[in-house]
Amino acid sequence: MQKSTLIKSIKNKRSFLCIGLDTDPEKIPHHLQNSEDPVFEFNKQIIDATHDVAVAYKPNTAFYESQGIEGWASLKKTIRYLDQFKDSIFTIADAKRGDIGNTSERYTKAFLATQPHGFDFDAITVAPYMGSDSVKPFLSIKDKWVILLALTSNEGAFDFQTQKLENGNQLFETVIDISKTWGSDKNMMYVTGATKAEMFTRIRTIIPNHFLLVPGVGAQGGSLEDVCKYGMNKECGLLVNSSRGIIYASRHDDFAAEARKKALEIKHIMEKELLRAGII
Amino acid sequence: MQKSTLIKSIKNKRSFLCIGLDTDPEKIPHHLQNSEDPVFEFNKQIIDATHDVAVAYKPNTAFYESQGIEGWASLKKTIRYLDQFKDSIFTIADAKRGDIGNTSERYTKAFLATQPHGFDFDAITVAPYMGSDSVKPFLSIKDKWVILLALTSNEGAFDFQTQKLENGNQLFETVIDISKTWGSDKNMMYVTGATKAEMFTRIRTIIPNHFLLVPGVGAQGGSLEDVCKYGMNKECGLLVNSSRGIIYASRHDDFAAEARKKALEIKHIMEKELLRAGII
Repeated sequence: MQKSTLIKSIKNKRSFLCIGLDTDPEKIPHHLQNSEDPVFEFNKQIIDATHDVAVAYKPNTAFYESQGIEGWASLKKTIRYLDQFKDSIFTIADAKRGDIGNTSERYTKAFLATQPHGFDFDAITVAPYMGSDSVKPFLSIKDKWVILLALTSNEGAFDFQTQKLENGNQLFETVIDISKTWGSDKNMMYVTGATKAEMFTRIRTIIPNHFLLVPGVGAQGGSLEDVCKYGMNKECGLLVNSSRGIIYASRHDDFAAEARKKALEIKHIMEKELLRAGII
Repeated sequence: MQKSTLIKSIKNKRSFLCIGLDTDPEKIPHHLQNSEDPVFEFNKQIIDATHDVAVAYKPNTAFYESQGIEGWASLKKTIRYLDQFKDSIFTIADAKRGDIGNTSERYTKAFLATQPHGFDFDAITVAPYMGSDSVKPFLSIKDKWVILLALTSNEGAFDFQTQKLENGNQLFETVIDISKTWGSDKNMMYVTGATKAEMFTRIRTIIPNHFLLVPGVGAQGGSLEDVCKYGMNKECGLLVNSSRGIIYASRHDDFAAEARKKALEIKHIMEKELLRAGII
């Protein structure tokens, strides 16, 4: 997907919500457990109930891999089901891959390519530790994106990402600063955790124009408003993700309707922020 | 596998060779292309020809994922085929995973667990960027190992891994120093690239007892001898990997026999080094 198409979708839907399809078979409502492919059936109903409110879906590959070959099949069906929304839904393989060049090429084939076995996602999350040649292969397909881990929202983020370097930066700042030259704001985004909203200011001085993928925002409005205050740019520049807060809003027959309600709650805050910023 | 079992296997086989099963369907000899599962058939013949010379096999998951569901099935068959050597062969999923805690738990299920969908590898390679809670879940199963990326052998290693920190260390040194407290030398190893043999001296001062997984050693003896000089400890403490140099030694009918020849060449150098160090 082109950047301009993503921005158009955000303006049309008045939302920059990404829904994380981290589908755990044990958390799927009872009445779906006997369907042929419970994970796909769950995803399908979540997508049906939310596709006009979300601009992106982000299945985390771990949840599918842990189901073996069946899980891989559920993921394939899910991404093919999303094909019908190709013009308005941005799809992200939350795979956190990254390996030496010839191996990252293989992951590119697996997740971004179409033929013969590729999932054809719009984007893949990539870990930066192995450097340029581990990231660049993912940038080789037109209109496909790398979303590089910069500052994650977990406790372990403080082990290495915030290490102070001799150059005065924290590691994540240098990761962004160096890696931004490998692509452009038209094929790279960055994962930046919402638990540290004040750090967005610093990030925006390094990459004013890139989209940021923000995990860790719950149904609570508070931190979402902070993310917008410090992270939003004139084109929005944000995809804010919610996974469990939406897809497990209810564990019963009404799970899809409840997911929609939660998604709408977040969307209303997003709409307000987009209006405030004069983007819509 | 327990550390003592691995060391016993090294002593018995007089080798610390790990063979990378980075099997590319396009490089499989012509006569295998029409078999039911060419990738598995290739791996099986490589294993049959080398299992008495190698102490470990390391399929890189990217090569299997890029073949979609079929690839996942080939990987499953390969690891099940290796079950017959459970007491003498250490198996490594070269997956370079790592995600927030509940997600790394899923990858643990996928690669290290046995039931119901797990591959049951002995070890998985993990990227350190997301810190402690992204790594610890992999250490939750007895006698299963994390092999953490420290200093990789690719060009991009110099982008971030060798960044100088305010504390005087390079990043990879701090990665090792902090992460070594998350487990022990009985369930953690480190990937340390062979292109920088002199750096092993520094690494050995931080982790004298851990095993190191060393990629990037070719059939040329030179660098392997350097790796031993600087990296070997009194229990050996090394797994040295070769992938393409062995599995693609020939692209014809004799590929398995030629793979064995290459493996034996490396093994003879390893045997000499083990003798020199008084380990055998």
